[in-house]
Amino acid sequence: MKIALLSIGDEILSGDTLNTNSQWIGQQLTDVGCSIIQQNTVRDEQVSIISALSQFCVLSPNYIIITGGLGPTEDDITRQILFDFVGTDSTFDEEYWHELSVRFERYGKSIPESNRSQALVPIKGEIIPNEIGSARGYKFNYEETIIISLPGVPSEMKKMMEKSIIPSIIETGIKPKCIRTLRTTGIPESALIEKISSATQINHGCKLGYYPSLFGVDIRISNLESDPVDSLANEIYKILNHSIYGEGKITFEKVIVKLGLEKDKTVATAESCTGGLIGHRLTDISGSSRLYKGGLVVYSNEAKINLLGVPAKIINVHGAVSSETAEILAVNVKNKFNTDYGISVTGIAGPTGGSIEKPVGLVYIGLATQKGVNVKKFLFGNHRKRNKLRTSQAALNWLRLSLLND
Amino acid sequence: MKIALLSIGDEILSGDTLNTNSQWIGQQLTDVGCSIIQQNTVRDEQVSIISALSQFCVLSPNYIIITGGLGPTEDDITRQILFDFVGTDSTFDEEYWHELSVRFERYGKSIPESNRSQALVPIKGEIIPNEIGSARGYKFNYEETIIISLPGVPSEMKKMMEKSIIPSIIETGIKPKCIRTLRTTGIPESALIEKISSATQINHGCKLGYYPSLFGVDIRISNLESDPVDSLANEIYKILNHSIYGEGKITFEKVIVKLGLEKDKTVATAESCTGGLIGHRLTDISGSSRLYKGGLVVYSNEAKINLLGVPAKIINVHGAVSSETAEILAVNVKNKFNTDYGISVTGIAGPTGGSIEKPVGLVYIGLATQKGVNVKKFLFGNHRKRNKLRTSQAALNWLRLSLLND
Repeated sequence: MKIALLSIGDEILSGDTLNTNSQWIGQQLTDVGCSIIQQNTVRDEQVSIISALSQFCVLSPNYIIITGGLGPTEDDITRQILFDFVGTDSTFDEEYWHELSVRFERYGKSIPESNRSQALVPIKGEIIPNEIGSARGYKFNYEETIIISLPGVPSEMKKMMEKSIIPSIIETGIKPKCIRTLRTTGIPESALIEKISSATQINHGCKLGYYPSLFGVDIRISNLESDPVDSLANEIYKILNHSIYGEGKITFEKVIVKLGLEKDKTVATAESCTGGLIGHRLTDISGSSRLYKGGLVVYSNEAKINLLGVPAKIINVHGAVSSETAEILAVNVKNKFNTDYGISVTGIAGPTGGSIEKPVGLVYIGLATQKGVNVKKFLFGNHRKRNKLRTSQAALNWLRLSLLND
Repeated sequence: MKIALLSIGDEILSGDTLNTNSQWIGQQLTDVGCSIIQQNTVRDEQVSIISALSQFCVLSPNYIIITGGLGPTEDDITRQILFDFVGTDSTFDEEYWHELSVRFERYGKSIPESNRSQALVPIKGEIIPNEIGSARGYKFNYEETIIISLPGVPSEMKKMMEKSIIPSIIETGIKPKCIRTLRTTGIPESALIEKISSATQINHGCKLGYYPSLFGVDIRISNLESDPVDSLANEIYKILNHSIYGEGKITFEKVIVKLGLEKDKTVATAESCTGGLIGHRLTDISGSSRLYKGGLVVYSNEAKINLLGVPAKIINVHGAVSSETAEILAVNVKNKFNTDYGISVTGIAGPTGGSIEKPVGLVYIGLATQKGVNVKKFLFGNHRKRNKLRTSQAALNWLRLSLLND
């Protein structure tokens, strides 16, 4: 099922409005097995709208879904352009006009004349009801394409999609795609692709997509049938193993909290360069209080010395950003909170504060467990916020891998 | 100056990725006086990319700006398609390949062969440097249009736009709009609009836009001339005063850190429901260590009792989420870190854990200063992450207002 999306509105082109409508429709329709072949955003202007529709029709999509341009204001001109494009006259719906007037009165307002256009009904075409707004939608059969026109207000558009459009698309007997998204962390995109090439470069018949972020790379595998998807996923699992932390929409933080609860473990954090980010991420998950007991943000040397017992001598000799400091912080925060794990991070977030010996991006992460303590050294980049995010990710991933083996 | 935008990527069409790039480019270029005439999103596929470029060329834009499709993976095919479209051969840039290899080595990795395509250089066309990523951009003269191709990673795309593209567009002598963005916090959008209506409802000739987020509302005032913008901004300042925390792109966190340094003050945090978010936000700013000394994340009752001296009786009688607890946390964290301010937050982030007496969204914020301690009560909503963000915003705003008066 091929879908083309047309967004109408100068406010989208100028960036005043973020086009979340296209994303939402894309997600919903991809999930039920459609394929979005193109999305255009055009101005509130006859020639642009008609030319976009004509270009779409060349692609013979099953549906063209238009959002925007159905309001009562002067620049909302889609309605008449559409009627002309599909070649239909319209009549005035007195009953709906009356209904609209009553709705306005209910809020103590009289209906503006400019709303009259919203009561127009095409002779060749259907009306799509709008339960929460005044602009109804339209549905036309045009050549081999069904053209749908919806208001641009997201809440109204979504309700109409959910109530009318998506069910009618599903009814056509469309077969949803089989999709699995393997979420990985700890391996950069290019290295990941190389690592799994023995699985991906054979003839598996699936579509593969890689979606990198600061936190990791999602691998999306899709096919019309589930067997090839599962078999490729299995091969990738064999190679990546625990670098895959979950599937689908599950978040990294949720995986860790869930794992912590399953293993009945507790953790405390001693954060320097991340400033509280690790605790913040864990506490984004409801139920995290059973795993996460709290922590210290030891941003100053005094705090490291006075509140987490790092000897001043260690800081003087090895520095606040050192393996030695990370080790003591991890052990002492574990003891202070009486938890199973203690995580510490200390590093140079940047952009200033680096030296040749200790460049910006240098980070030590410590993990204290009941078996002892370990420290790992990382070298991230020059960007402060990204260094913080990457540090938190590396620390939480180490916790996750330890929980898995515990 | 007419601009057409082309976004390339199946992940945008399927809704896996929200197309914030087009919005950002739209805003930036509208601000400098350009007009975005159309935006298309197409699949990572030759026929779609070429047909979109051809259709754009019919509109004779001054610029076509393409984002996406320049990564090293198999589905990133834009580069070669573009070279073919504008009719240029390419050479392999050994020097850049060496530079890339060194960059990878610095992070302890060897460069994958798949990155080789990123070292290709068109014979007819220019390279646009990428300071923070491996995919460089391209600039071609094609008929009467300049075609720009940039990577889809937002941070890289933005840096390249700001460093190379926007300055070169401004150099053509285009007249930029005068724009001021007043950044406010603490007043909801509808209340804000009503509050400043005496200033906005007179004939000021400016375009006004309101951009709400969880942190506040930005008021954007624009006009071709600066006088009307300044005069309207002045009127709004008279009404909103310190509810405006800054202008333009300055962040809320930066304003607070700057203010703290100017006033030479220090602060410590005791966070319960925010889990470290307040410390995280302050430490996003370089130089924050002179203001922010650290804090405790007292997520459990034991931590509140054992580490910040909240009497068990207070928690038993009044609860961990109470004015009494917030007060003690603020005072004790201030003393523990020996700072000028102590901020505490304790609340029910949700979605579970609420009661009729203490519903989800109930938050107490404490602020201890050298003059004493105060506690404020807030009632946010049902959404956990939003509650955390709103709590951190309210706490930091209180700190900001106190610093202003200190």
